[in-house]
Amino acid sequence: MTDNAGPSGPLPETGRTILRRKRERGSRDQRLLEAVLDEGLVCHVGFIADHGPVVLPMTYARLGPLLYLHGSSSNDLLRHLADGAPACVTVTLVDGLVYARSAFHHSMNYRCVVLFGRAERVSDPAEVRQAAVALLEHLAPGRSADARAPTDQEVRATLVVRFPIVEGSVKVRTGGPVDDAEDLALDVWAGELPLRTLAMAPVPDSEGPAVPGYINGHRLRSSTWPSDD
Amino acid sequence: MTDNAGPSGPLPETGRTILRRKRERGSRDQRLLEAVLDEGLVCHVGFIADHGPVVLPMTYARLGPLLYLHGSSSNDLLRHLADGAPACVTVTLVDGLVYARSAFHHSMNYRCVVLFGRAERVSDPAEVRQAAVALLEHLAPGRSADARAPTDQEVRATLVVRFPIVEGSVKVRTGGPVDDAEDLALDVWAGELPLRTLAMAPVPDSEGPAVPGYINGHRLRSSTWPSDD
Repeated sequence: MTDNAGPSGPLPETGRTILRRKRERGSRDQRLLEAVLDEGLVCHVGFIADHGPVVLPMTYARLGPLLYLHGSSSNDLLRHLADGAPACVTVTLVDGLVYARSAFHHSMNYRCVVLFGRAERVSDPAEVRQAAVALLEHLAPGRSADARAPTDQEVRATLVVRFPIVEGSVKVRTGGPVDDAEDLALDVWAGELPLRTLAMAPVPDSEGPAVPGYINGHRLRSSTWPSDD
Repeated sequence: MTDNAGPSGPLPETGRTILRRKRERGSRDQRLLEAVLDEGLVCHVGFIADHGPVVLPMTYARLGPLLYLHGSSSNDLLRHLADGAPACVTVTLVDGLVYARSAFHHSMNYRCVVLFGRAERVSDPAEVRQAAVALLEHLAPGRSADARAPTDQEVRATLVVRFPIVEGSVKVRTGGPVDDAEDLALDVWAGELPLRTLAMAPVPDSEGPAVPGYINGHRLRSSTWPSDD
């Protein structure tokens, strides 16, 4: 994604993106913003239904300054978004659990992007196809060259919206626990348990072609396929 | 968490929890609901701010039929929740990427719980302490016996809300790709890339006590600590 995608703009601070708490965790680093969006696999999309707020997970892909979301034409959330309803799109990466000596200072390391805005329906079939490519490449760069491209009928059955990356915030916590000075002498283990989302060995659907290089070299693979135990 | 927590009730189907699409992915299995909530590390909480919908990640813990959320007394989201604003709490576990032969049928394996309701502020200091224990145990069962318990001042500085697990839905996708019959003969690799969130080797904050058993045997640890490469 990042290689051929154009830049998203730096996000200006607006009334609703000013970080009122833990400002030191805020970042206006555009590369960080893009890295979080390109690393994440699902976003959580919030919108206001008749009965109140709804938050649902969705896959997505970034293409320059836009996030593309897609699904069936009958998807309720996407129809709200396509109608221009105000929305919030959040991508959170959990990087570690932070164990402090005191209960009070336990924490989590994370990187989080929160975007505000209104989406637009993508009506140009060429842009739908471009979004489909981006969504495949987000799952594994190289995949779009292998998979059978969408038919015209499949394009028509897919609702794609673009969400502008123009307003929002990035928040990050890294490092170990921050204990009160008087707790440092306590005989309690403290530290970080780093977390990573890793790919296990691929499970082929049937005997068929060999596992492609973009799966064997997937960004979520560690040096070996970890055992699934 | 699960060991000593009471059951949450089975969720009845209501107007806003009827699954209109992919009903076969829906589940009313209460154990599954609880397993997802107990395995997840962050939830995404949606509420309606003056300017529109907001979705933020939060840590949480389940205690029987309640989810506890906590943070600083000045936390904006928590203050909305404590005031009884309608909210949506979503926990999503991503279990795998699903590569189909056609672009159209690519998918993701996941387990997702979406809860609707209104939270209540926890004002009884004893219940705040109980929630603090649950939140620590959610990070690692056994941790609450080691960490220094909150002082009265820390209890007062913490805003805790309880969110009832009474209305919502559970949705699950498992298994490999579902391609159209006419695509099965295509020379395209298809299958699942299972994903797991794993703990890397713990990073102690300082030379101190040995790594406790509940960290060494953490549920997110694989048979060995995977290397962080």
